[in-house]
Amino acid sequence: MGPGPSNPYPEVMEAFNRPVLGHLDPEFISLLDETNDRLREVWQTNNALTFPISATGSAGMETSFVNFITPGDDVVIGVNGVFGNRMCEVATRAGATVTRVEEDWGRTIDPQRLLDAHPNPSIIALVHAETSTGVRNDIAELGANKGDSLLLVDCVTSLAGIPVLIDEWNVDIAYSGTQKCLGVPPGLSPLTVSHRAMERLVETPQSWYLDLNMIKEYVSGDGARAYHHTAPISMLYALHAGLGVVLSEGLEQTLGRHQSCGDELHSRLPELGFELWAQEGYRLPELTTVSIPEGLDDVKSRQHLLDRYGIEIGGGLGPVAGKVWRIGCMGHTARMRNVTLLLGALEELTNAGH
Amino acid sequence: MGPGPSNPYPEVMEAFNRPVLGHLDPEFISLLDETNDRLREVWQTNNALTFPISATGSAGMETSFVNFITPGDDVVIGVNGVFGNRMCEVATRAGATVTRVEEDWGRTIDPQRLLDAHPNPSIIALVHAETSTGVRNDIAELGANKGDSLLLVDCVTSLAGIPVLIDEWNVDIAYSGTQKCLGVPPGLSPLTVSHRAMERLVETPQSWYLDLNMIKEYVSGDGARAYHHTAPISMLYALHAGLGVVLSEGLEQTLGRHQSCGDELHSRLPELGFELWAQEGYRLPELTTVSIPEGLDDVKSRQHLLDRYGIEIGGGLGPVAGKVWRIGCMGHTARMRNVTLLLGALEELTNAGH
Repeated sequence: MGPGPSNPYPEVMEAFNRPVLGHLDPEFISLLDETNDRLREVWQTNNALTFPISATGSAGMETSFVNFITPGDDVVIGVNGVFGNRMCEVATRAGATVTRVEEDWGRTIDPQRLLDAHPNPSIIALVHAETSTGVRNDIAELGANKGDSLLLVDCVTSLAGIPVLIDEWNVDIAYSGTQKCLGVPPGLSPLTVSHRAMERLVETPQSWYLDLNMIKEYVSGDGARAYHHTAPISMLYALHAGLGVVLSEGLEQTLGRHQSCGDELHSRLPELGFELWAQEGYRLPELTTVSIPEGLDDVKSRQHLLDRYGIEIGGGLGPVAGKVWRIGCMGHTARMRNVTLLLGALEELTNAGH
Repeated sequence: MGPGPSNPYPEVMEAFNRPVLGHLDPEFISLLDETNDRLREVWQTNNALTFPISATGSAGMETSFVNFITPGDDVVIGVNGVFGNRMCEVATRAGATVTRVEEDWGRTIDPQRLLDAHPNPSIIALVHAETSTGVRNDIAELGANKGDSLLLVDCVTSLAGIPVLIDEWNVDIAYSGTQKCLGVPPGLSPLTVSHRAMERLVETPQSWYLDLNMIKEYVSGDGARAYHHTAPISMLYALHAGLGVVLSEGLEQTLGRHQSCGDELHSRLPELGFELWAQEGYRLPELTTVSIPEGLDDVKSRQHLLDRYGIEIGGGLGPVAGKVWRIGCMGHTARMRNVTLLLGALEELTNAGH
């Protein structure tokens, strides 16, 4: 119950048993195609270029910037946590001139502030669900008013946990991770790119491994696929299976399950003395942050939860280290039985005064 | 029996069943440390920074260049196949001025030509085992005479297949892939960096995801590890297990098994009318290339091998597409029974005149 990796779905673990095919084997290519179709359903998009990057979420972030930035481009980035900050670093290394729109950690960013920050940036970028704070940033208003800019959204902790509407919100570039609400181990980063963004692809991005011009010749299109790099076959089996679980349950039902677990945590934790830390109205159901109550030691308490109950929860990152805890309820972990166990464990912990 | 992915060892497939721990869980950190110790044995090195990059072999290549190149640096690269060529692309994107030392595909590169190509390059780079041609390039002489340059070697298809002696050969930077002779599915790129190279790390490389300054704070050192990106937990279990198989069998024995399979193929294939294509004396046992005999259709014959016998072999890449086949015998696939089956299948194929 940390901020990820979540527990994988049993069907995902089974999928790892599939024999490892070659990355150009027709049978594997159809599994990849089906994975991408499933991703389109979960992203709620018709984007042709929708596939998993062969590395973890941060590589999805890097792909999203390096393929669309020419040195000197102006980029506006919202920063209210670790991952907004990481976006600034990645964009800067790609040569962008970054305008940071800061907000206090734990509070949401007013979309109007991003729209007002620069008259015509090439990209406006924002984290949808800030894993470091448990706060949701709203996207729809940015998509409606972005003008000529591309809208780039980090959906690592939001995809399959809260609604993500790529087409309806007019998002141009979005990436996620497998190890959160998709219930798959870490290792891949689902990415989706709008037709509008495809027309602005940089011809030769600084990264060869993440070069979308080359990768698209392998992951999409009819007929023969051009080899770029060896696809991570087994992880793709796992993602294929995880998406299958989500779509068999139904995307609405999966989102509902995450919401119910979050609602229960949000209503019960304060009763146990754990004050909710994220701004009201913008709290993520899949990632709950609480202030560490006085009298409880951060590290010792978390170690006790791990040793005594087999529960991992996350500490705070950066400026809020030692001040907050992060409780994840994502993927296969998002079950009411886990919420019940954690609440019981926290009650015992509080009573014992660890 | 293609050029990779090879069949994974059974113990590797079992390792995927391990519960997914968090990337900061002490139990996981000790597994990561043990994986890195095992990698040191297989690389035959004492290099402190030895660990798997969280992406496939080509990302290992990119890591190896972007962390050691300042724009304008002179880099000498040997090119006698696809992967030497890829090195040039990656180095150029990192801002290097590249001197290419070309050799015919299928022939080895004389190390002296690389040493003579530039008076004092910052890096001399070479592919040890060219996956596109089945040719070995010799490394030792480069290490002995490199002067002030760093020696960077692609060991994707050599590690655990033929001897790789990082310390004895004075190699500074080397990367590999999991999906070849290590018998693990694709997804990670083992990397090792000498102390001498560590002193020349670029402070802020263009890639955030592959930034060794940051990653080393997570993968090595005593005490608490600093979070950089979420480690690909399940793939690391798989690599840990694959290395366990290699070291339990014994590295010498594993290399011997690859050599025996290669020897058998090299002696039997010409009898069946398949001329060995790579230069004599530099043929890789783990990857055998043959000219496609007249009368056999490239694509149809390979499809027939897949459909009738369940055997995948690789076609030629780039300029040798349609002219050569690539037969891999790596990892768990490197068993004499597989050689026997392939030889039988090829005999039937030739007789049928596909």
